[in-house]
Amino acid sequence: MSKFKRNERIGGIVKILSDSPNKVFTLSYFTEKFNAAKSTISEDLVIVKKMMEEMNLGIVETISGAAGGVKYLPFVSKEEKKVFLEGLCQKILKEQREIPGGFLYLSDVLYNPEVVAKVGGIFAQEFGSKYVDYVVTIETKGIPLALMTARSLNVPLVIIRDENKVTEGSTVSMNYVSGSTGKLKTMYLSKRAIKPESRVLIVDDFMKGGGTAKGMTDLVKEFDSEVVGLGFFIDQLSEKEKMISDYVSLLTCENVDGKLVIKPTMEK
Amino acid sequence: MSKFKRNERIGGIVKILSDSPNKVFTLSYFTEKFNAAKSTISEDLVIVKKMMEEMNLGIVETISGAAGGVKYLPFVSKEEKKVFLEGLCQKILKEQREIPGGFLYLSDVLYNPEVVAKVGGIFAQEFGSKYVDYVVTIETKGIPLALMTARSLNVPLVIIRDENKVTEGSTVSMNYVSGSTGKLKTMYLSKRAIKPESRVLIVDDFMKGGGTAKGMTDLVKEFDSEVVGLGFFIDQLSEKEKMISDYVSLLTCENVDGKLVIKPTMEK
Repeated sequence: MSKFKRNERIGGIVKILSDSPNKVFTLSYFTEKFNAAKSTISEDLVIVKKMMEEMNLGIVETISGAAGGVKYLPFVSKEEKKVFLEGLCQKILKEQREIPGGFLYLSDVLYNPEVVAKVGGIFAQEFGSKYVDYVVTIETKGIPLALMTARSLNVPLVIIRDENKVTEGSTVSMNYVSGSTGKLKTMYLSKRAIKPESRVLIVDDFMKGGGTAKGMTDLVKEFDSEVVGLGFFIDQLSEKEKMISDYVSLLTCENVDGKLVIKPTMEK
Repeated sequence: MSKFKRNERIGGIVKILSDSPNKVFTLSYFTEKFNAAKSTISEDLVIVKKMMEEMNLGIVETISGAAGGVKYLPFVSKEEKKVFLEGLCQKILKEQREIPGGFLYLSDVLYNPEVVAKVGGIFAQEFGSKYVDYVVTIETKGIPLALMTARSLNVPLVIIRDENKVTEGSTVSMNYVSGSTGKLKTMYLSKRAIKPESRVLIVDDFMKGGGTAKGMTDLVKEFDSEVVGLGFFIDQLSEKEKMISDYVSLLTCENVDGKLVIKPTMEK
């Protein structure tokens, strides 16, 4: 097996780590991959760690002990987050997006791979310390955001259905009042989807009254599990009190004199 | 601004390229980012290109001319694809997945970020030469696969809805016969979703009769656009003739003596 030069090993390590955020790679994994000594790989990792931090490209964390190794965590600096969210607002406001019923057309933004990858990184950073076991969303528009969050956290994605589907097998259902329409609806989740005593992060594209989020939280409880965080892309302000309180949103949308205004959510 | 060492620059270049597959970065982008001369960056890129290829980590392509630069393309070798797909089949067959109605429970596989990222890379490689403008899917289970394919190709994702939703604005609808149930159904897509004269790649999780895929193809035509490829995760063999012919599938599933058997699709 051929030997690699230091700069080749470093390139390889960066690629492997950043392809699998939050996944622990042992030192032996790299020593075998690159046919190099442990001390050599340790030195490589010091360089990778320093470079990633200096250039704001992410965090490389060392885990000590028998199950030890290194893992990569996405990192978005405060400044980068601000520029990204302000850019998004400008993009949203620049174009003609209002559709009948007082809604904004946002599918192109919510389905843009580059945008959702960034949002996933931001949410992963926000909730990374919560020991999340699953990212849960409800179909359809929040799925890309939720998937990229799950990918950044290296945990499975779970999708709650708004209809009972045969391919889900036996399901648990939950009735809820949609905050935006006031209608009574039902959501369904396969009994196999969440193991008991799990820690769940809820991610969705939009939150108005919080009825759907409340329903998802109640449904998670039926799986003997706990919601440890809620993240929304857009939070619509309204006069009515919301049905949930402790959540994170990236953008805030408000109806001002009949016009929807969107801006980055103020940090609390 | 500080200078970076060669191995730091190489790590940084690898990270930036692999975070944005199929996106062209100019040489100037890197010379500014690293405060280095064009000749230095050119040498770095030669090392990156060689390392990525030798280690099967991806392809770095150089684009010459005024709009030139470099881009990264995911690459999955034949051997790696085989191991990945065989591993998936083993995982699927090992567990108790049969649910009433002759279906297999596959949501955990279809929503697994690592699995769908790999599938997205395989589809991107398969259809990369087709100049795809959009990846199109229909809700819900194929969305993660389609998103990761779109991300690997650096094009927008488009999601066809199975109900008409107010947040989509004005829509175009298409009636179709679901190949698996034989029922007449309707799909909807926002008029804003696809620009005329686009080249579309259809990605979905499952194909049986091909009725849904045929409906999607017809709907794309209503946008004066063309389907240039179809990729399915699982192709279910049946005695009836399929409604579409020219497609790619990764796994093939067959009902043998009342039991579903799954294996990697044979290369044509």
